[in-house]
Amino acid sequence: MPKLIECIPNFSVSEQVDPVVFQGLVDTANAVAGCTLLNTHTDGDHNRCVLTVIGSPDAIEEVAFRLCKKATETIDMTKHVGKHPRMGATDVMPFVPMMDVTTEDCVALSKRVAKRIWEELSVPSFLYEDSAVCPQHRNLADCRRGQFEAMPEKLLQPEWAPDFGERKIHPTAGIVAIGARMPLIAYNVNLDTSDVEIAKKIAKAIRGSSGGFRYCKAIGLLLEERNIAQVSMNMVNYEGTPLYYAFEMIRALAERYGVRILSSELVGMTPAKAMIDCAEYYLKLENFNDKDQVLEYHLIGME
Amino acid sequence: MPKLIECIPNFSVSEQVDPVVFQGLVDTANAVAGCTLLNTHTDGDHNRCVLTVIGSPDAIEEVAFRLCKKATETIDMTKHVGKHPRMGATDVMPFVPMMDVTTEDCVALSKRVAKRIWEELSVPSFLYEDSAVCPQHRNLADCRRGQFEAMPEKLLQPEWAPDFGERKIHPTAGIVAIGARMPLIAYNVNLDTSDVEIAKKIAKAIRGSSGGFRYCKAIGLLLEERNIAQVSMNMVNYEGTPLYYAFEMIRALAERYGVRILSSELVGMTPAKAMIDCAEYYLKLENFNDKDQVLEYHLIGME
Repeated sequence: MPKLIECIPNFSVSEQVDPVVFQGLVDTANAVAGCTLLNTHTDGDHNRCVLTVIGSPDAIEEVAFRLCKKATETIDMTKHVGKHPRMGATDVMPFVPMMDVTTEDCVALSKRVAKRIWEELSVPSFLYEDSAVCPQHRNLADCRRGQFEAMPEKLLQPEWAPDFGERKIHPTAGIVAIGARMPLIAYNVNLDTSDVEIAKKIAKAIRGSSGGFRYCKAIGLLLEERNIAQVSMNMVNYEGTPLYYAFEMIRALAERYGVRILSSELVGMTPAKAMIDCAEYYLKLENFNDKDQVLEYHLIGME
Repeated sequence: MPKLIECIPNFSVSEQVDPVVFQGLVDTANAVAGCTLLNTHTDGDHNRCVLTVIGSPDAIEEVAFRLCKKATETIDMTKHVGKHPRMGATDVMPFVPMMDVTTEDCVALSKRVAKRIWEELSVPSFLYEDSAVCPQHRNLADCRRGQFEAMPEKLLQPEWAPDFGERKIHPTAGIVAIGARMPLIAYNVNLDTSDVEIAKKIAKAIRGSSGGFRYCKAIGLLLEERNIAQVSMNMVNYEGTPLYYAFEMIRALAERYGVRILSSELVGMTPAKAMIDCAEYYLKLENFNDKDQVLEYHLIGME
């Protein structure tokens, strides 16, 4: 099984607004051996793009630096306009452990990249999420509050010194948030009721912020077209809080209101392991080792 | 997602008895671009080896032919001694759909290989399992009964004409069984009882041959060390009869005897999809498309 890390950098440029700069980033992502550009997402209103690159730790470390270098050279934040909050040309650069790699590996890698970006490009950074050294830098929204324009002043506040670099932004590239995080799974459970209050109560009960599962963010909402209530979740660490924890707890809580689970849904991609863990639980599998026993794991990167 | 087929040919030679011939087959398997030798198994008592090769349909078609050619040129069945039943130098050659390939694709491929093996190597064949044209050729054990030594006479019987070739074996390479089949999953369910009769009754109820699930073979046995009864199964088509059918039916049948399921186990490798299908069932997922939504599927063969 090869070691694989995913990097999903967000840049303050879009194909719609500046196709040449956007293409420069795509070309850079495609120019490093050992990694693959899996997906690009670009939004003209946000004037922002997201690249999904996957590959070996060494290749990811190199491509992350090169992408940040390219963005620093080609994007001028003093002229950037877009609806999405942003603080740098490379706005945020998360590293996600995918295969045979630990979060600790990704944390170490993120720090090496942040150091190099400061030393060679003079772009300072916050270490966020699992890489956070200062607890107040953990949450991306907190780091980014005030955006590019307010950063010069923000960096002078006691708790907002960059983790790498001096207390001033790069004049045109701003500042970047760099860190390791688990893959995020968007998971929704639909209830056999139109009473959105029930979904809201359940969401409050299961989310980590109000005493529920540590790695679960949840809200209750009404799907108006179908007139059913939904518990909409972001599972931010499916190993710590597996999908079936959420499903079984919602089932138990809904029962109190005489409500059944109608269905659930996964939005976007999910690691196979998040689903295999559910099969392992429901089938009561013993002595199961997914690394040895799941055939596809032997095929990844085989040729 | 790339198209992937697995071929698991069995040859009447072992590394223990004839290392040079064995190595010739391994080298042949490694010499075709687009496929990979995943595993070799060789048994001196059986004087037999099994290669597991996976790759694109074109590469698998080519490597299957070349392996049969090599075996025909280097193995002399008139001198072969081994405990395992066998009828040819290439004894059996199954093709298993792995990814983005149908059973029908594998059936068509198996027939092309069988035709070429007859035309270029003068080795006749039975089409077995899903490729069977004559129902009496479907079961491999039936095809092989009498073994190499009795084949010349057997082929003269009305129902035992080869599906490709004339009614006589290749003088030194015998005859081969070729066909498509689904991957086989060895799956056991352990019961909270030492009464093996309960496991035997449940096994009889769930296996296809006695009226249960079409693609499930099952026996009841006692795990003596743990003193618990087990329903031991071969799931021969996990898409037709998913693992959770077996699990849920065993749970329902065991309840009648006041017995609970203790655990279950997967022996050896399993396709991720067999487990993902279980997660989909238990989580009541709606609108789930594994091809689009399982991240690892996008990584296989990526580089």
